[in-house]
Amino acid sequence: MPRTPADTLKPLKSLAWDGGLESGRLVVLDQTRLPGTVRYLPLRDLDGVVEAIAEMSVRGAPAIGIAGAYGVVLHLIPRASAAAGKGSAILSKHLDQAIERLAAVRSTPVNLRWALERQRACFKRHIGHLTALEMCARLLMEAKRIHREDEELCARIADHGAPLLAGGVLTIGNTGALATGGVGTALGCVVRAHQLGRKLQVFVGESRPLLQGSRLTAPELQRAGVPVTVICDSMAGALMATGVVKAVIVGADRIAANGDSAGQIGAYQLAVLAKGHRIPFYVAAPYSSFDLKLRDGTRMPIEQREADAVRRPRGALFAPADVAVWSPGFDVTPAELITAIVTDRGVIRSPTAARVKSLMG
Amino acid sequence: MPRTPADTLKPLKSLAWDGGLESGRLVVLDQTRLPGTVRYLPLRDLDGVVEAIAEMSVRGAPAIGIAGAYGVVLHLIPRASAAAGKGSAILSKHLDQAIERLAAVRSTPVNLRWALERQRACFKRHIGHLTALEMCARLLMEAKRIHREDEELCARIADHGAPLLAGGVLTIGNTGALATGGVGTALGCVVRAHQLGRKLQVFVGESRPLLQGSRLTAPELQRAGVPVTVICDSMAGALMATGVVKAVIVGADRIAANGDSAGQIGAYQLAVLAKGHRIPFYVAAPYSSFDLKLRDGTRMPIEQREADAVRRPRGALFAPADVAVWSPGFDVTPAELITAIVTDRGVIRSPTAARVKSLMG
Repeated sequence: MPRTPADTLKPLKSLAWDGGLESGRLVVLDQTRLPGTVRYLPLRDLDGVVEAIAEMSVRGAPAIGIAGAYGVVLHLIPRASAAAGKGSAILSKHLDQAIERLAAVRSTPVNLRWALERQRACFKRHIGHLTALEMCARLLMEAKRIHREDEELCARIADHGAPLLAGGVLTIGNTGALATGGVGTALGCVVRAHQLGRKLQVFVGESRPLLQGSRLTAPELQRAGVPVTVICDSMAGALMATGVVKAVIVGADRIAANGDSAGQIGAYQLAVLAKGHRIPFYVAAPYSSFDLKLRDGTRMPIEQREADAVRRPRGALFAPADVAVWSPGFDVTPAELITAIVTDRGVIRSPTAARVKSLMG
Repeated sequence: MPRTPADTLKPLKSLAWDGGLESGRLVVLDQTRLPGTVRYLPLRDLDGVVEAIAEMSVRGAPAIGIAGAYGVVLHLIPRASAAAGKGSAILSKHLDQAIERLAAVRSTPVNLRWALERQRACFKRHIGHLTALEMCARLLMEAKRIHREDEELCARIADHGAPLLAGGVLTIGNTGALATGGVGTALGCVVRAHQLGRKLQVFVGESRPLLQGSRLTAPELQRAGVPVTVICDSMAGALMATGVVKAVIVGADRIAANGDSAGQIGAYQLAVLAKGHRIPFYVAAPYSSFDLKLRDGTRMPIEQREADAVRRPRGALFAPADVAVWSPGFDVTPAELITAIVTDRGVIRSPTAARVKSLMG
């Protein structure tokens, strides 16, 4: 398998244009089909973007934010001509509508709302100065900027996180190129450490129920040439007990002002296990994953995954069809279990509200 | 769904006879097909028993022991006539052969070797007094006795364990009727507590890679009328953090002299998590699961599960076909993490070598 950057799968491509501004489409990788099938979906309108995010064809907090920003543009462009002669109120209404629909699709990853609010702020800054079509072009520019910026945020996170990793590293979920606009957050640190020549042995929990670890992270690391071993989520404790794991690193979907972090379900128990085995536990995330209005992790919105992802994953019968299932998609790791939060702005060691504020406030 | 005892699936039936002693067969439930298909396999010889244990059609430490005891008989019966005139050496050789082959199939569940050694001891006690065919009948009686005794051991474990359980209970793997000759070990305590009217809310980890929790324990509890909710193994920590779990109870495949316990992979991390959440952690097992020759858990033989059970469970693509996998079938919970071991002889609280010896020695 070639392991060039060109071989890396990307969660989404910038809005592509067949011709005029009206014929735009957002092309996203359908991650639900991986690792078996590589299929890109062309999304032509808000419905398409909403469905792609809801179905988790696009997933990963930063990637969802980028997709949302593009989704706003896809909704406004075909409405710009009609709105042109009728003042900004019409377009503003369409903007609100798009933001409202997109924001409702996923509740835990705060980057979605962050990106949508950025589009709203951009709109407000320019309303009155631009025609409706110019506004669409400006919002498209903003979406592309959010996309490019995320690539840069990932690069900085990787710079800060790579020196923390050597030897056995355990991760969970997918926090790499497939989840972001760049090299990734937690997985970006791993890949960067590998590129810097640090000898790694990476273990990834399969990350039930949706298997982002075995389906997405494992092939991503294979492509990057990083030695990777898949374990079941039930094996993390046994693995730590062998002594091979020198660090745990995970991503985040929402970090509160005090450093409490919501992330891939299973991250919390890895943090408890890491503490019990005296292994450092790192969270890696860009500033756009911080929700400083949230004082701590007690009120994080936590999505539930559908029961059949547990009972009948990918068509295989795992449980009685009618059995009750409890299946949160995320859990919250309290700050006191986090050795450090690795951000684009630097590393917050032993995070507290004061330390988070001094870097992210 | 009827919830009578008759509705309970059994892992194996006593050796059944079509006619003479020569036409015996052991009928075992093919647990690999559950929960989708109920199919019993008629095993007619040692090869059949070896294969059924190797493929885990019969699994669960006590059930494997019983199957092994019957397997010895199936091997000897057709050889008894030929051995009849040639002294006991021939039959003794066949016995050794059967025990050696059966003992090699599974290494962690000590009950297998325990049951085989019991057959060997029975053989030695009676050699010289019995004809070859009488010896076979005697060994068959011993196998049935082991089978019946296990039912009794389960009942006693349930008596001792049920009072420990009320409210939310978390378990993993399958330790019920499907794993034993009776009501089960850990799950037997759960079912008994329910029958005694204690209000339970049982959670079971799906128990990857082989899904004994979601495939076997969930339907067993449904049949028994016990409220059961399946979680992924990644969710145990998050579940404990909600406060709903009041006790964790698991089975054991081998318990060392100091109380260290090897069991279903994932039990160890539940023990660490339980300690972190101040939740009692119980191990339930019969005396036949104790390996008192083993000083502690450091030298437990730990089986590895095949990689494709992780990468491609039940035909579903979970990971790249060529990715490396680490997949132990068991892990070891140190005695200091165990609140109590529930045995047929009583409850060993805060197990130590001295306390184990005083009850089991």
